[in-house]
Amino acid sequence: MNMRRVFGSRWFVSGVSVAVGVGVGAALTQYSSSSSSLSPSSSLLHRLPVIPIPSVSARSELAPYSPPGALIPGGGGGKSAAVMKYGFPSLSNVRSRESYVSSYDPRCRTAAWVIEQLSPETLSGSADRKRCDFKEDESVHVYHRSTNPDYRGSGFDRGHLAAAANHKWSQKAMEDTFYLSNVAPQNPHLNQNAWNNLEQYCRSLTKQFHNVFVCSGPLYLPRQEPDGKMYVKYQVIGKNHVAVPTHFFKVVILENRRGEVELRSYVMPNTPVDDKIPLERFLVPIESIERASGLLFVPNIMKRTNSLQAITAG
Amino acid sequence: MNMRRVFGSRWFVSGVSVAVGVGVGAALTQYSSSSSSLSPSSSLLHRLPVIPIPSVSARSELAPYSPPGALIPGGGGGKSAAVMKYGFPSLSNVRSRESYVSSYDPRCRTAAWVIEQLSPETLSGSADRKRCDFKEDESVHVYHRSTNPDYRGSGFDRGHLAAAANHKWSQKAMEDTFYLSNVAPQNPHLNQNAWNNLEQYCRSLTKQFHNVFVCSGPLYLPRQEPDGKMYVKYQVIGKNHVAVPTHFFKVVILENRRGEVELRSYVMPNTPVDDKIPLERFLVPIESIERASGLLFVPNIMKRTNSLQAITAG
Repeated sequence: MNMRRVFGSRWFVSGVSVAVGVGVGAALTQYSSSSSSLSPSSSLLHRLPVIPIPSVSARSELAPYSPPGALIPGGGGGKSAAVMKYGFPSLSNVRSRESYVSSYDPRCRTAAWVIEQLSPETLSGSADRKRCDFKEDESVHVYHRSTNPDYRGSGFDRGHLAAAANHKWSQKAMEDTFYLSNVAPQNPHLNQNAWNNLEQYCRSLTKQFHNVFVCSGPLYLPRQEPDGKMYVKYQVIGKNHVAVPTHFFKVVILENRRGEVELRSYVMPNTPVDDKIPLERFLVPIESIERASGLLFVPNIMKRTNSLQAITAG
Repeated sequence: MNMRRVFGSRWFVSGVSVAVGVGVGAALTQYSSSSSSLSPSSSLLHRLPVIPIPSVSARSELAPYSPPGALIPGGGGGKSAAVMKYGFPSLSNVRSRESYVSSYDPRCRTAAWVIEQLSPETLSGSADRKRCDFKEDESVHVYHRSTNPDYRGSGFDRGHLAAAANHKWSQKAMEDTFYLSNVAPQNPHLNQNAWNNLEQYCRSLTKQFHNVFVCSGPLYLPRQEPDGKMYVKYQVIGKNHVAVPTHFFKVVILENRRGEVELRSYVMPNTPVDDKIPLERFLVPIESIERASGLLFVPNIMKRTNSLQAITAG
C-alpha cells in the first residue's frame, strides 16, 4: 500500500521511462521550450543524445556567471580552489571544506549545491566512516541550521550530497562530509540503492577521465494538481523545518586529457527507485536543472573550454 | 464561495486576530521556541510589546553577517550605499538600483528581499507612474527571469516590493521599481488594500523618524496537513514558474535623531485581508521572519547601534 502510494504519484508512475519521460521529464521539460505551447518535437529536441553548444573563446578568469550590476565575491583560495575549476553554480553562502565546496540554502536548511572533485587519489585511503558522526554546521546561524533531532523519526535518511566514500584520502575530508549542511532528507530506499549506484558510477568514471567534477543538490519541482494549476509542494521536517527535496540532481563534469569536456546531468525523484533501471534513464538536459534549481553550470564551463558535449540520453 | 474558501484556509480563518495569532502566528512561532514542545507561555514571550536586545559595541564596518568560512563580497559603493546602513539580510544576487537594493531568488523568480530608504525627499517629486511599465530585468539570466506573460491571466497582481510611490523624487528611481525582479505575484485585494495601507503607513513614519528603512519580501510558510506532517506549498505561475508567496513580510527599521533604533516587523498572508483590521495586528517577532525567510536582520543592526527596540505588538 505504501509502495503503491509512492509509485502512484505523478512523478513516478510505473517505471523510470515514465518517471523521466512523463514524471520528472514533464516537470522539467515544461521549462525547456521558449514557445508558449510545448510541441512533442520541441521537447524531443532537448532529449537528443548530444547537444552541441557553440564554441566560445576561453576566458582566463575563474569567475562565476555574474550579471551586470551584481556584487560578486573577490573569490576564495585555499586547498579546495581546484574543485572550482568550472566555477560556482551560484554565489550564495559559499563554504569551502577540506575536499568539497558547498552553497547553503538558509531557507531550506540544506545545501543548494555541493561540488567535489573525484580522483583515484581521493577515493582511496584509510579514512574510516565508523569514526564519523553527523554534526551540526556551526558556521550556519542557529536559526537556519538543521540538527540531528530534526531527522529523528522523520522517516528520511540524512542523505550525503558530497558522498563520504568519495573522500577516503583523509579522515578530516571524510568527516567534513558529515556536516548536516552537506546533507538533505532523502528517502532511505533511494539513498541506499539507486542514488548509491549513481555515486558508485561517478567514482568509476575516474578510471576513464582525467578530471571528474560532481555537483549534487536538491530540487523542488512543481507539478500540476487537479485544479489545473502548478504547485511546488514539499514536506519540512523537525523543529527547524528542514525541507525535503522532491528530487535530487547530479551534474557530472568530465574532462579528458585533451581538455575536452563532457557533461552528464541526472535527476532522480526522492522516492524509492528500482535500482535495476539503467542510470542513463535518469539523464536530463542540463538546461532543465539550470532552470529548476536557479543555478547555472554551462556559462561557467564555457569560460574554461571550447569543447563541450552535453550527454542527455544513454 | 470564493471568499469563503480563501478565508476558510488554515492561515486566515475568520479575522486577523486569528490569522496572526493562530494562522500566520502558528506557522511562524512554530520556530520561536528552542524547546521541543511549544508551551503557550514560551510563544507568548515573543509577543511581548518590546523585546530588549542586549547591547553590543557598535562596529565600524558595514559588513553583513558573515559566518566563519563564508566567502563574502568586497562590498559595493554607489548612490544606493546609504540604503544599506544596517547591512544586507543576505548576500545572494544583490543588485543596486537607483533608490533600492534587492537580492534576487533565481529559483523562485522574485526578489528574496528589497530594501529602500524613505524620506520626505524621496516621497515627493514629479515622477509619473503612468510613464512606467513593468519590464523584465535583463540582468537576470533568461532561465531565471520572470516576464509579463507569466503574470497574464494568472489572477495575481504584479505586486511591488519597493513601492513605486516611495520614489517620486526621480523618474528613473520610480521606473526602477517596475523591474519584475522587484515584483512578486500578489493577491489583487491584498495589493490594493491592506498591503497598500501598510506601505502608506511606512511613508507616514518619515514625519516622525529621522531615518526610515523598509525591507520587504516574500515568505513560503509551512502548514500542517491532515496527515499531521508539515508542508510548504505554493503555486507557480506562467511558463517561467514564478513562485506565488504564501505571505509577505515588511521589516521597518526606524532611527531617531539620537541614533536609537526601533524595529517593526509585519507579516500578511497573500490572500484578501480586511483593511479595517489595525496594522498592529500583523506585527510579528523579527525572529520569526528571520527563521522562516533564511535572512538575518538583527545581527547587522546590532553592529550599528547599541539601542534597539523590537516592537512586536501594538
